[in-house]
Amino acid sequence: MLKNIRKIHIEWGDCDPMGIVFYPRYFAWFDACTAALFARAGLPKHVMLKTYDIIALPLVTTSAKFLLPSRFGDEIVVETTITEFRRSSFDVSHRVLNSSELAIEASETRVWTGKHPDDPTKFKGLPIPSEVIARFKD
Amino acid sequence: MLKNIRKIHIEWGDCDPMGIVFYPRYFAWFDACTAALFARAGLPKHVMLKTYDIIALPLVTTSAKFLLPSRFGDEIVVETTITEFRRSSFDVSHRVLNSSELAIEASETRVWTGKHPDDPTKFKGLPIPSEVIARFKD
Amino acid sequence: MLKNIRKIHIEWGDCDPMGIVFYPRYFAWFDACTAALFARAGLPKHVMLKTYDIIALPLVTTSAKFLLPSRFGDEIVVETTITEFRRSSFDVSHRVLNSSELAIEASETRVWTGKHPDDPTKFKGLPIPSEVIARFKD
Amino acid sequence: MLKNIRKIHIEWGDCDPMGIVFYPRYFAWFDACTAALFARAGLPKHVMLKTYDIIALPLVTTSAKFLLPSRFGDEIVVETTITEFRRSSFDVSHRVLNSSELAIEASETRVWTGKHPDDPTKFKGLPIPSEVIARFKD
Repeated sequence: MLKNIRKIHIEWGDCDPMGIVFYPRYFAWFDACTAALFARAGLPKHVMLKTYDIIALPLVTTSAKFLLPSRFGDEIVVETTITEFRRSSFDVSHRVLNSSELAIEASETRVWTGKHPDDPTKFKGLPIPSEVIARFKD
Repeated sequence: MLKNIRKIHIEWGDCDPMGIVFYPRYFAWFDACTAALFARAGLPKHVMLKTYDIIALPLVTTSAKFLLPSRFGDEIVVETTITEFRRSSFDVSHRVLNSSELAIEASETRVWTGKHPDDPTKFKGLPIPSEVIARFKD
Repeated sequence: MLKNIRKIHIEWGDCDPMGIVFYPRYFAWFDACTAALFARAGLPKHVMLKTYDIIALPLVTTSAKFLLPSRFGDEIVVETTITEFRRSSFDVSHRVLNSSELAIEASETRVWTGKHPDDPTKFKGLPIPSEVIARFKD
Repeated sequence: MLKNIRKIHIEWGDCDPMGIVFYPRYFAWFDACTAALFARAGLPKHVMLKTYDIIALPLVTTSAKFLLPSRFGDEIVVETTITEFRRSSFDVSHRVLNSSELAIEASETRVWTGKHPDDPTKFKGLPIPSEVIARFKD
């Protein structure tokens, strides 16, 4: 499967009084890394939303295991892949490396979401087009 | 003029490795305090945007003077007022107090913004309704 | 077990272009809610860190299930409890309600962390004092 | 004077329900851009703080003029320079460009800050070493 690799320089403002990354920041990066993976597959988010008339790819679940802290001045690497596609949802894996050591393992499930056909103020999971899925195959 | 007073408890995650509030956090609070002032005037943002068919109240300028740092565990008070209304823009003042001492003085100018009549993908400053302005008078 | 209940007003700046809360924000609130639970047990974080000579309560794992989105203008309620204490780690549960409906279920495992006795630049899990645990019993 | 140029890809999570960058995000980027300018001068923050025994470079004032909004998917460029050094403080200028158009002009004043010699729990502005200033001259 296609993989996206992003280097992130840890900034002062990403860190808490302990001097390590305040963990909600990782989830903001994971969200951007999932978007970057789609962009790498030829589907930048602002284009993809229009092309397929979807609203977003909201999360239904996420989990993370924090093995090593990172500090400001560190450069981390986030490796992102999709591990499974289902009808209207898919699983994403993020692995964070710091100096080649595994620092975080995270996963998330997202839904291909459009407006509800009966009520445009509501959201609904829609079938993921097969041409979208094909873009992530090696 | 109407004034909004909001107490904010400084959280661990609001602070940087120096142990003081990472200053962009103040601007997020100021944005919420401006919204709270409108809510206090009877115009909660999610209602106001629909009632007056505007998109938002984006900033055109802001400035802040930081006199005293605040730390996690501190409780600060933000006093917010509108200091001037013009045709389609207005000025907001925020004063932050920590233990009754002035910690920050900030101001911002915002625009009453709707969709451009000729191009709905663009934004345009619109005249602020006089009934809106009247709500902020004592 | 002791429970903390916090009301959170969803602000404009907490939301993404879809108009719903950008999910990393929830984790920042969960971190503050865990701190609020300790404060409710008589252990405000800035006092607790000094009293027990610990550095922080970093996460080792977290997971969340997002059932319903929340929008700006909504008021959510976060119910936080500790579900288990072990020697140097403990589990926290957060339940988010929006208009009395369950919106998110989340859990996290944190470690009672001090400086490593052999190397103060490193961190180490330490035994949680029994008097601390006792404060969370009903 | 030395100039730092940073490209920033605007992410979904940087934007508000209007679809444009939530302005406090710019201040987080400006903070990182000031740090990047020092790194470019050979003084990465985590090294500089130790070398010169300072705690941080906290802001005393900042101001910004927002000329054009930016949207997710946009790539902005931030040009950062120091415009003046004084005894213990200095002024920084940030210019944000979007598609070669000036989008934001911002400035900030920061203080070279160490522990107060009489009370290490307090902060104090210290003279900026001339060798530090020399690094920013062309």
